[in-house]
Formats: sequence, structure tokens, C-alpha cells
Amino acid sequence: MREPIVLDGSRVAAEIKANLAGRVERLKELGIVPCLATILVGGDPASATYVKMKANACRRLGIESVRVELPETTTTEELLEAIGRLNEDPAVHGILLQHPVPGPIDERAAFDAIAIGKDVDGVTMLGFALNTFGAAAYPSCTPAAILTILDHYGIGIEGRHAVVVGRSPILGKPVSAMLLNRNATVTICHSKTTDLAEMVALGDIVVAAVGKPRFIQGEWIKPGAVVLDAGYNPGNVGDVDYEAACRNASAITPVPAGVGPVTISMLLKHTVEAAERAAGLR
Amino acid sequence: MREPIVLDGSRVAAEIKANLAGRVERLKELGIVPCLATILVGGDPASATYVKMKANACRRLGIESVRVELPETTTTEELLEAIGRLNEDPAVHGILLQHPVPGPIDERAAFDAIAIGKDVDGVTMLGFALNTFGAAAYPSCTPAAILTILDHYGIGIEGRHAVVVGRSPILGKPVSAMLLNRNATVTICHSKTTDLAEMVALGDIVVAAVGKPRFIQGEWIKPGAVVLDAGYNPGNVGDVDYEAACRNASAITPVPAGVGPVTISMLLKHTVEAAERAAGLR
Repeated sequence: MREPIVLDGSRVAAEIKANLAGRVERLKELGIVPCLATILVGGDPASATYVKMKANACRRLGIESVRVELPETTTTEELLEAIGRLNEDPAVHGILLQHPVPGPIDERAAFDAIAIGKDVDGVTMLGFALNTFGAAAYPSCTPAAILTILDHYGIGIEGRHAVVVGRSPILGKPVSAMLLNRNATVTICHSKTTDLAEMVALGDIVVAAVGKPRFIQGEWIKPGAVVLDAGYNPGNVGDVDYEAACRNASAITPVPAGVGPVTISMLLKHTVEAAERAAGLR
Repeated sequence: MREPIVLDGSRVAAEIKANLAGRVERLKELGIVPCLATILVGGDPASATYVKMKANACRRLGIESVRVELPETTTTEELLEAIGRLNEDPAVHGILLQHPVPGPIDERAAFDAIAIGKDVDGVTMLGFALNTFGAAAYPSCTPAAILTILDHYGIGIEGRHAVVVGRSPILGKPVSAMLLNRNATVTICHSKTTDLAEMVALGDIVVAAVGKPRFIQGEWIKPGAVVLDAGYNPGNVGDVDYEAACRNASAITPVPAGVGPVTISMLLKHTVEAAERAAGLR
């Protein structure tokens, strides 16, 4: 086999951000500064890092970020009130509630409290349903990143067989719906799938979204398949055994610098679009 | 091959209705009459027949049915007002808006105006999302019927490969989600699927939901597979070539008297459950 095309997420993200930079400038000329509010509840260091990364990415693009930090002891009611205030604030265009919140909080209720017009991270039930019906303004960011990478590299989706490994509410389920809406035949696999190797081997497009390091074996990949690895495990390791998969794949996302950077750029894009809608530009 | 087990929807429906009859009695002893409101907009004869069938099925079980009939010229606003009145009416436990409504009406807005607690037909966006996340009180009736038939006959779902042909919002998409939530590996096929025959041949469980008479060929069915035919085409013909499929299937729903009668019993069951919730019994 030839070497696969490496689907360079850093390059895709850079192009998206270059496009967004111009749009942020236009908004500022109209007196509007796009603004993402991030909510961090409790002191989980990984979550704190993620929120900081997102806020930094905003700042570099000229998007304002409002950081709301709430204590570990926050109640569901208090969190809902904080979200309600951000919903009402016309200066805030997008709201991101960092997952996971501390155990006692009703995370689903908190996600669903985010106004649909500000749900730039695609976490509400309504946003999920709209996305499944092909009508969401802001799909979940990682699924959107996966589709964006395919489109960027001109990889066809219609009529191809996409095999998605994983069925989480913000990744496996919505990416399956989005691939289906783009006319792929879609198979969804998970921990209870028997013969996972055989299933993965059916895929023209394989999306790995399981959260287990190097779980998808290289020999499972059909020769010529396109592999998108949405995993991000400790030690910068994806869900796919990258080196082995390269022997079969025609194109593959690396980890890091694959799906991850495009995911963040989707969050930025949705925030800019929300600001453009508020400005009547969309 | 041996003859397949015929999955007798009429018998399944009869058992469900026998169970519901006792529950309706108990509700009446508490002074509560379960009530389904049906809304028919315009004069489409097939729609009128469907609504009448559903109302008759209610009556036979002691469930009250309120029939709202609106003229062809009804506006979206007028329909939303009618739905709003039924939402507010404590005597109404379930609301069914007969699909399709006349073209100028925003059907999606009308469906989504139904209060989630009265969405016994499972047509709202929120109900769809809840169902996809395994938390819906009232899933769409045909998908619920398919699962009920499988369970009634003790046919295992977990770890099996289910192939769903069709991706409509009230059938293909929700039944895929329900099979996935029951730990099937799920493949969703549709009009843009290449090699449909090969895909169907992978299925341990095949769900036909395309609306094309005898579209699924018997020789596509893997020997021993279970076939559920949700099609109902003119002339009482399903989406599966029944006679030919019988040569391969281990179990199959006929048309008529397969999925259809169980679908109506799901509507009745959801209405009774909504009344039980109103009575504080659930």
C-alpha cells in the first residue's frame, strides 16, 4: 500500500480561523464583539485546562470570552440561574458548559437550560433533534469537525458505508446522524457489538469515538478506507492504532493535530455565527 | 429451510389491549376516563379513515376520543391555537395530529406545539431526542410496536446486527435509536445506499420501512434472520416480498396483521399511561 494522506487538522483549523478573523473584524466595525461564555463548575484540573484552552483560542481570534467559575458545591438551581443570566445577556452570543459537572448536579437539565440560539457547543436535546433532522444551526463540535475534515479534503460521503464506533450523545450519535443526512449508509457499533473487527472492516469511512487508547486495530481497516480518530487519550494517543492503520487507510487523521484542533475551530465558528445572527448578518 | 415463525401482530395487539382494558377500568373507578384528542386538518380521505380507525380503537377499549376537525384552509396559527387549547385541557391526556396536514401549514411547528406530556404519538422534536437518549415516555408508535413484537416473541436484540431500511423521522430514525439503545449494532440504509442487497444480507434483524411495495427481496434476507415489515402499501402489501422472504427468515411479520395492529395498540397504551400519570398512578 501507498502511504495514506494525513488529514491535517491543524491546517484545516488554521484555514477556518483565517476566515473567521475577517468576519470578527467586520463585526467589530459594526460595534459587535463576538462573545463566548464558558462555565466551569468545580476544580477538576483537566476541565479547567480545557476551558482555558478554549478561552485562549477565542482571545487569539478577537472573540471575547466571559469565564464563569462556580464552586464544587454549586446546586443545580444555582447553575440554572447562572445559565439563565447568560441567556438573557445580549452581549453573550454563545454559552459553553464544560462537561462533566460535579455529580450531584443534573447535567442534562443544565445543558437543556442553554437557549437554543446560544447553544454553540450543540449540547441541548433540541439541538440534537434539530441536528438529526438536518436543521441545526450549531451541531456538536466534534461531529461537525469530522464532517468539515472530510469536506475539506473532498472525500465523498454519499453512498459510502460509514462505520461509527461509539454512541455517546455528543459524538457517536450526532456524527452518525450527520453522516446519514449526507447520504452515507451508517453502521453504529459500541461495546456490545459482536465481531467489531468484521464491522469495522465494512467501513469505507471509519469514525473512532470510543475513548480507549489504540483500541481500533490497524488490520481491521479495509484497504483504502478513510479513518477519522476522535479519540484523545492520555499521552496524546488516539482510539486507533495509527501506525498499523496507516498500512491500510487511504487517508487518516493523526492524534494530536487531527480532529481536535478542528473541534475547537467549530466552537469559534459557531460563536461568530451566533454573533452574526445577533447582528442581522445571517 | 423450515417455515418461519409468523410474528402475529393481531395476537400481540389483543394481549396488550386485554391488559389495557383492566387499567382503563381502574382509572374509571377513580373517576378518570382516559382521553385521546385527534386532530384532522382538511379532507384527505385516507387521513380521515386513519383517524376514524384510531377513534374506534379507543372507543372499543373505553378510552374517550375527542375529534377535532379543521378545514383545509386552516392556518398554522389556528392549528397552533387548537393544539394549545388541548394542551391546557385537563380532560385530554393524549393528542394525535394526523399527518400529513395541508401543504401551507408548518407541520413541524404544529407537531412541536404538542405538550411533551401529551405527545402519545411521539412526534415532537423533544420526544425524539428523549427517545434517542433512552428516556422517552412515549416513543413513536411504529418503532415501539417493532420492539414490542420482538420482546413478545423473546427475540434477543443485544449484540445482534439490525439493518433498518428507511430513515424517516417517525420510523427509520427512531427505531434505529431504540435498537441501538437495546444494544444492537445498527446499520441504517436508504435510497442512496449502494449495494442494498449486501447490506440487508448482513442483518440478523431486518426492519423494512421504505414505503415501496415488495421492495425488499427475499433472497437478500440472511438465512435465519428476523424480518419486521413496517410497510403498508396499497393492496395490503408490505415493503418485503413476503413469500420469498419466508424461504430465508426464521421469523417474519405478515402484512396485514403484523406491525400495523401493534402500532395502534401502542397509541392506546401511551394514552392510558398518560391518564395514569395524570392520576398519579405512575
